[in-house]
Amino acid sequence: MVNYNNSRILLQPNEIPKEWVNILPDLPSPMTPLVNPMDGKPAPPELALAIFPKECVMQEVSQEPIIPIPKDLREIFARTYRPSPLHRALGLEKELGIKGDDIKIFYKNESGSPTGSHKPNTAITQAYYAKKDGIEELVTETGAGQWGSGLSYGCNLFGIKCTVYMVRVSFLQKPGRKILMKSFNAEVHASPSRHTESGKNFLEKDPEHPGSLGIAISEALEHSLRSNTIRYSLGSVVNFVLLHQTIVGQETKIQLAKVGINKPDIIIGCMGGGSNFAGLMIPFARDKLHGVLPDVEIIGVEPRACPSVCKGEYRWDFGDTSMKGPIVKMHTLGHSFVPSPIHAGGLRYHGMAPIISILYNNKVISASMHHQSEVIKSGLLFSNTEGILPAPETAHAVKEAIDQALKAKENNEKKTIVFNFSGHGFFDLLAYKLYMTGDLEDYELPTEEIQKALSSGEMPKIDESQF
Amino acid sequence: MVNYNNSRILLQPNEIPKEWVNILPDLPSPMTPLVNPMDGKPAPPELALAIFPKECVMQEVSQEPIIPIPKDLREIFARTYRPSPLHRALGLEKELGIKGDDIKIFYKNESGSPTGSHKPNTAITQAYYAKKDGIEELVTETGAGQWGSGLSYGCNLFGIKCTVYMVRVSFLQKPGRKILMKSFNAEVHASPSRHTESGKNFLEKDPEHPGSLGIAISEALEHSLRSNTIRYSLGSVVNFVLLHQTIVGQETKIQLAKVGINKPDIIIGCMGGGSNFAGLMIPFARDKLHGVLPDVEIIGVEPRACPSVCKGEYRWDFGDTSMKGPIVKMHTLGHSFVPSPIHAGGLRYHGMAPIISILYNNKVISASMHHQSEVIKSGLLFSNTEGILPAPETAHAVKEAIDQALKAKENNEKKTIVFNFSGHGFFDLLAYKLYMTGDLEDYELPTEEIQKALSSGEMPKIDESQF
Repeated sequence: MVNYNNSRILLQPNEIPKEWVNILPDLPSPMTPLVNPMDGKPAPPELALAIFPKECVMQEVSQEPIIPIPKDLREIFARTYRPSPLHRALGLEKELGIKGDDIKIFYKNESGSPTGSHKPNTAITQAYYAKKDGIEELVTETGAGQWGSGLSYGCNLFGIKCTVYMVRVSFLQKPGRKILMKSFNAEVHASPSRHTESGKNFLEKDPEHPGSLGIAISEALEHSLRSNTIRYSLGSVVNFVLLHQTIVGQETKIQLAKVGINKPDIIIGCMGGGSNFAGLMIPFARDKLHGVLPDVEIIGVEPRACPSVCKGEYRWDFGDTSMKGPIVKMHTLGHSFVPSPIHAGGLRYHGMAPIISILYNNKVISASMHHQSEVIKSGLLFSNTEGILPAPETAHAVKEAIDQALKAKENNEKKTIVFNFSGHGFFDLLAYKLYMTGDLEDYELPTEEIQKALSSGEMPKIDESQF
Repeated sequence: MVNYNNSRILLQPNEIPKEWVNILPDLPSPMTPLVNPMDGKPAPPELALAIFPKECVMQEVSQEPIIPIPKDLREIFARTYRPSPLHRALGLEKELGIKGDDIKIFYKNESGSPTGSHKPNTAITQAYYAKKDGIEELVTETGAGQWGSGLSYGCNLFGIKCTVYMVRVSFLQKPGRKILMKSFNAEVHASPSRHTESGKNFLEKDPEHPGSLGIAISEALEHSLRSNTIRYSLGSVVNFVLLHQTIVGQETKIQLAKVGINKPDIIIGCMGGGSNFAGLMIPFARDKLHGVLPDVEIIGVEPRACPSVCKGEYRWDFGDTSMKGPIVKMHTLGHSFVPSPIHAGGLRYHGMAPIISILYNNKVISASMHHQSEVIKSGLLFSNTEGILPAPETAHAVKEAIDQALKAKENNEKKTIVFNFSGHGFFDLLAYKLYMTGDLEDYELPTEEIQKALSSGEMPKIDESQF
């Protein structure tokens, strides 16, 4: 008999974790620095400080395994939307023909935040630190709009101006996101835009350019350098963003322990830049590295249309398409790669967080990839059985969780599967509509296209021996 | 110094109330029966049983002041989305220039349910009872789609088919709702439709007919009589629906008590048919009737385009436009009245719940009305300060709460204001977009139009002395 009281585990505000988990000191191979595109050398702190809030720059390179979450910030989380619930997916399990407690699927529900995703976890944090530094405006890029609305919301909490460059294809697919951002006082531009030189360059080549996260980053970076009271804000990829998201995994551990689970078997998240996946998995990955959870499987899920980890190369590359921002060592499809217009706009990024790249190279985590149509199909099944319609990004994690559960069932294995339900799909209904009418296309990335993007003459040559 | 831990009050699943509050035995004047349109006499139980699940019919006329919520049902609430949070609107208070604790605004946040509103509270309950009766299909009407998606979700939990007739103007304004309902396996028709005789009649007169809740009810009722395994389901107006919603007010009382508030001053909800307003206020209205809360003000808020309480007549009228369903004594604008196409589709109903009508006539509660544009403006202010974009319906309650807070501030009064945040506006962004571009129209209802609708020759003549 299932105990329903254990099937949705709620925490009280005073149980919000007091610490973020910093994986940097535990990485099996050392973190690589951000490199200055001007000279190919590690970026000096002054450069990072011109771009990001001070405390974030410190966190980016911190070797402290544990970083306290300021009390003020915990109070803001408490009065807005944290802690978030951890659900047992009983409806989904039943649909998959899973009986009893041998196979258990849990999902950490980050969709209940004001903007419907995990993004405010770092947005609020960055705005909090920016306010402390006297910053007046944060500027950023956004794909599907989850990050843009998260940052708009976060900035608005502190009375900071927010400007968002939104990838044009998403801007057109998801008009609701723009209205939501404007309701938080943000200024929103479709990218490529005519508001920056980088944007104008791309529009000159193609006035109908669909845009990409790489291009939008270039525009936001350019905009951020206009004044010393403006800073750039990133919603993924860099270390400090992943750090802020570990509040998700920290809560999840407390919640699992409340139902007697101290050793989950499989941890899953979708990955575009890597932030929601990292947020859930880093506390577990550290336990794996420390031998506490030696056997935990940690799986990041990518779209087949943009598989930077599964099919990309681990190398130095620009984080943005205009080659103005820092150079990063990461899994990448090449900064000139423009992904197909899949609906999971948040996963349309050519690179991957360095932390995730390093954990992958060292086999601490693994990666899988799925087609858009099978992902949306899984999303519908989830809505049907659990009642919450996932964002197309999140549906990648759903698909993987279903596959893992079915595999365990077939092999008669006992498995506890936990995935990050990073956001709802209420702003992404077009993908579901197209799936229902049979009009959703799949995009498989041909190897030659990756090779072409990677062998572009504009890739940086970095000599690490000179660092 | 504000204590943030008291600004968002969360309950644990085991604190879900065990009882609904039935106001019928406490009403200051007796509840009127549903009347059979065939003979003008109180509908016999057989008639009601052909339309609704058995347990709902019993609850409709029950004189028990307290009705237990079945344990199974509480478990389902616990594993899906209840209890819901009660928030202190600190951001909004600050924006209104309110300092300290003399004036406090709280909102009960029902927007966190899987379909984003309070509707699943009764949808799940009705589907639960229908399943017990062996019913295979529930059919209903919906305005903005909150109720339709709620019932689709509820039916899907129990494997019951759900058919929804959605008012055409909302069907066109809010395509996302249709996709959400379909994700829960529901069949959705724009109403008036060609699937029923009533629908065809309206389309013959006007192929572009915008529809109304009254017409959609006619279609759903007609559909429900096709087979004995189909029942009709209502999302508002009738007593048992209001009863199911009292879980909202019951939770709110527990939550207020946790922060030391046992005597709130003002209770607010928007009202279309009356369900979310009743759900919050009935437990407080009963306390008022019992002398426990003699001074509590209870205010229902209507759109100026459809003010059935503020400007309608208290009289016998058809609940539906085709005059096929039961006749009800209530505040009404006349069943032939077709409201202007305001965005708060859930408030476009010509009548009002009999319970609310009786409480209003006896001055237990009062009513106010607002224009669409000032309502949406308040909704934006709320999103801006509290971070959650309200549904246009909900924004009516927000507007009234703001007005009441400002009045108290001007008069130097101490007031605790509580309103029902009945749903989010993520599917209703068009209203906000039009407001932002200055294209949102207001509709004031001319008195002669009401008189015309009310003096139509088709109004029922009921002789109560014959009951």
